[in-house]
Amino acid sequence: MTGPLKVGIAGLGTVGSGVLKLLRDHNRELQERLGRQIVVTAISARSRSKDRGLDLSSYRWLETPAAVASSPDVDVFVELIGGENGAPKQAVETALRAGKPVVTANKALLAQHGVGLAALAERNNVALKFEAAVAGGIPVIKALRESLLSNRITRVSGILNGTCNYILSLMQSEGRAFAEVLAEAQRAGYAEADPTFDIGGFDTAHKLAILTSLAFGTEMSLKDVYIEGITGIQAADIEAAEDLGYRIKLLGVAQRTESGIEQRVHPTMVPKQSAIAAVNGVTNCVAIDTDYAGSLTLVGPGAGSKATASSVVSDIVDIARGDKSPAFVLPAAKLEPYRQAQLRAHEGGYYVRLSVFDKYGAFAKIATRMAEQKVSLDSIVQRRPRTGRPGRARSSPIDSGTPVPVIMITHDTTEAAIRTALERIEADGQIEGRPQMIRIESI
Amino acid sequence: MTGPLKVGIAGLGTVGSGVLKLLRDHNRELQERLGRQIVVTAISARSRSKDRGLDLSSYRWLETPAAVASSPDVDVFVELIGGENGAPKQAVETALRAGKPVVTANKALLAQHGVGLAALAERNNVALKFEAAVAGGIPVIKALRESLLSNRITRVSGILNGTCNYILSLMQSEGRAFAEVLAEAQRAGYAEADPTFDIGGFDTAHKLAILTSLAFGTEMSLKDVYIEGITGIQAADIEAAEDLGYRIKLLGVAQRTESGIEQRVHPTMVPKQSAIAAVNGVTNCVAIDTDYAGSLTLVGPGAGSKATASSVVSDIVDIARGDKSPAFVLPAAKLEPYRQAQLRAHEGGYYVRLSVFDKYGAFAKIATRMAEQKVSLDSIVQRRPRTGRPGRARSSPIDSGTPVPVIMITHDTTEAAIRTALERIEADGQIEGRPQMIRIESI
Repeated sequence: MTGPLKVGIAGLGTVGSGVLKLLRDHNRELQERLGRQIVVTAISARSRSKDRGLDLSSYRWLETPAAVASSPDVDVFVELIGGENGAPKQAVETALRAGKPVVTANKALLAQHGVGLAALAERNNVALKFEAAVAGGIPVIKALRESLLSNRITRVSGILNGTCNYILSLMQSEGRAFAEVLAEAQRAGYAEADPTFDIGGFDTAHKLAILTSLAFGTEMSLKDVYIEGITGIQAADIEAAEDLGYRIKLLGVAQRTESGIEQRVHPTMVPKQSAIAAVNGVTNCVAIDTDYAGSLTLVGPGAGSKATASSVVSDIVDIARGDKSPAFVLPAAKLEPYRQAQLRAHEGGYYVRLSVFDKYGAFAKIATRMAEQKVSLDSIVQRRPRTGRPGRARSSPIDSGTPVPVIMITHDTTEAAIRTALERIEADGQIEGRPQMIRIESI
Repeated sequence: MTGPLKVGIAGLGTVGSGVLKLLRDHNRELQERLGRQIVVTAISARSRSKDRGLDLSSYRWLETPAAVASSPDVDVFVELIGGENGAPKQAVETALRAGKPVVTANKALLAQHGVGLAALAERNNVALKFEAAVAGGIPVIKALRESLLSNRITRVSGILNGTCNYILSLMQSEGRAFAEVLAEAQRAGYAEADPTFDIGGFDTAHKLAILTSLAFGTEMSLKDVYIEGITGIQAADIEAAEDLGYRIKLLGVAQRTESGIEQRVHPTMVPKQSAIAAVNGVTNCVAIDTDYAGSLTLVGPGAGSKATASSVVSDIVDIARGDKSPAFVLPAAKLEPYRQAQLRAHEGGYYVRLSVFDKYGAFAKIATRMAEQKVSLDSIVQRRPRTGRPGRARSSPIDSGTPVPVIMITHDTTEAAIRTALERIEADGQIEGRPQMIRIESI
């Protein structure tokens, strides 16, 4: 049995408190399974007095993250503060320079500075680990770094943000409007007071950028992620998706194409029968498509104190067992430059919902615009809405000019073609408002 | 960069050929990612001349598995022969005694002799690894051994046999009978000429026994697995499940209870909305319930040359990186004796289908038998069958004595209670044939 592994933790929010509790609750089992004790020898956080449901008196308190990182009594530095710059970054660098392995849950830090930090870790021959930074308790980083190391990965996609999935699931199950469900999610603590980072797709984009680098052996490129949030999804889309055999999920998708890598975050229609469609509420899910291992789908809690703590501790366990392998599969110097595929070249099916003025010839004009761009249609549904103003819509006479919803599913086409077609349809003045367009993904 | 890792492979069937192809196809990437080359330095198999779609001339051929295991030119021994005794077991022991790590996909060997082999590996300070032995390409062994090491696991359950899932999926999607679908699966190569090992649940039991040991830190106990195969599942059950909001899957379930560990393999009703219900065809799925990481579900290919090869190579990768941790999480000597829970004490919901003679009072008698055992019913459906003899059934007058299907879903009760109730119902003579009973699992 080797001596104890001395851990220093900076940041005692939801995740940090969870890690302290887990290491306390399961201390004996961990030691038995690992053949080695894990001891927390130093902690730091913004507030010492905040009630965390934990007795901190037995831990040595230091004033700054950097003090924890450089403490001689710390073998492994655990950064759970969050934020891409400032104190957390400095402390991580301090630890790595001192030859100490680092565990972090900080997706912003990794998405912005991951490759530089990985290089620093390699120069000092220590590990930089971050299982908790993506998809909470789901061991997706380990799957990509270890289980699938011998595979060529073609696509990584997933539900990476619990808040968005909670909102979309509730819109789906209860047929309610986005704003109403968001307000409820905020009351329930599933959405922040300022929900932009989540519902705007930015949180998903950070996580996707990290997965991309791991999956494709490239440098990170958060700025090249195409991002579309869920604020534009209406109850009518959820309802139409259901009728057409789909569910709407906010997905992050990274895909290798001939012209480079696509990184996109957007609401996506997935087939109702797929495992990913069954992932509801705050649960996350990652699907990895490979050449040898086929398609793997991992489903689990995407956030929460306990699940995220479990991932942090799994990184500590790997370090205790001697893991020093490169952070992003390949050594940092061997990561290829990121080559961005043009989203206009993206190929796939599309869902389109238009509010068409009910006039003779309106639909023919729309169909013509689609045909001009060689967009062929798999299905077309023109119908009175089930929700909202049903009486009024139903009573409208034909050719009344009243807007009527028209829903189309296209066969595979390109983003350029569908966008051009929709721009022209809009310019023709046959529709009310803007067209709704949602990408379809086969998963 | 360390020197090359020299691998010897015994057994060149589906999996072994896949491993050779993977190591050949991805040699360069593997070396780049691992910082170390993997070289196959010796192979052996039953037939040298068999067409495997591979040129074997560049590999050194040895006559026996033991010769490969003991070859001085082999650092890692890979056993892909299968079978619980004889040559494969001897070769694995030879390698371990010589201080060589072993990778195997041999579930029978592990389920019978796993703990002894793990002890031998530990005495020689080398790894015994077997990702490919359970659920093909799904990295469930790694999840249990590494990602979830700090968790207390309460249940492991899953679809572990692709043949059974293929058959049940086809029965469900096409409304066809078991025998007919089995014959088709045999023609398509998804079922063996003698399908007993698969459809009888024995293959699932082997895999479950291995998962149990990993999840609960106990010695292996294949003989204590309760096994019920899928041969008794009728189209009427599949149809009733669908109507009631369930799907029928053959699950292996290992669960920690107050009285010990339950290991059971049986057809199971799972809620239609669950991720596991969406797992169709030959795909496998494992769900792990834990105290910290919550519930994780891993879905992927359960068999096949390429997916299984990917798992074998992931074990080789771990060995190349220095993994020597105990095979079953805990050191073999610390594994607890297996303590079997009594299945009669199992608690859960049950689906019951009876063919009741349509006579006044028949149903009252049945309800009384249930009540005597304190089995309360969640739902009862008495109806004419949609399939088979619809005309005849529909035309039967009330009190005709014609058997009519009655389907019941119970609230949570015990196995003892439901069994006693059904025995008495059968003894009362109110039903035709034997009662059908399927356990319900919330997943």
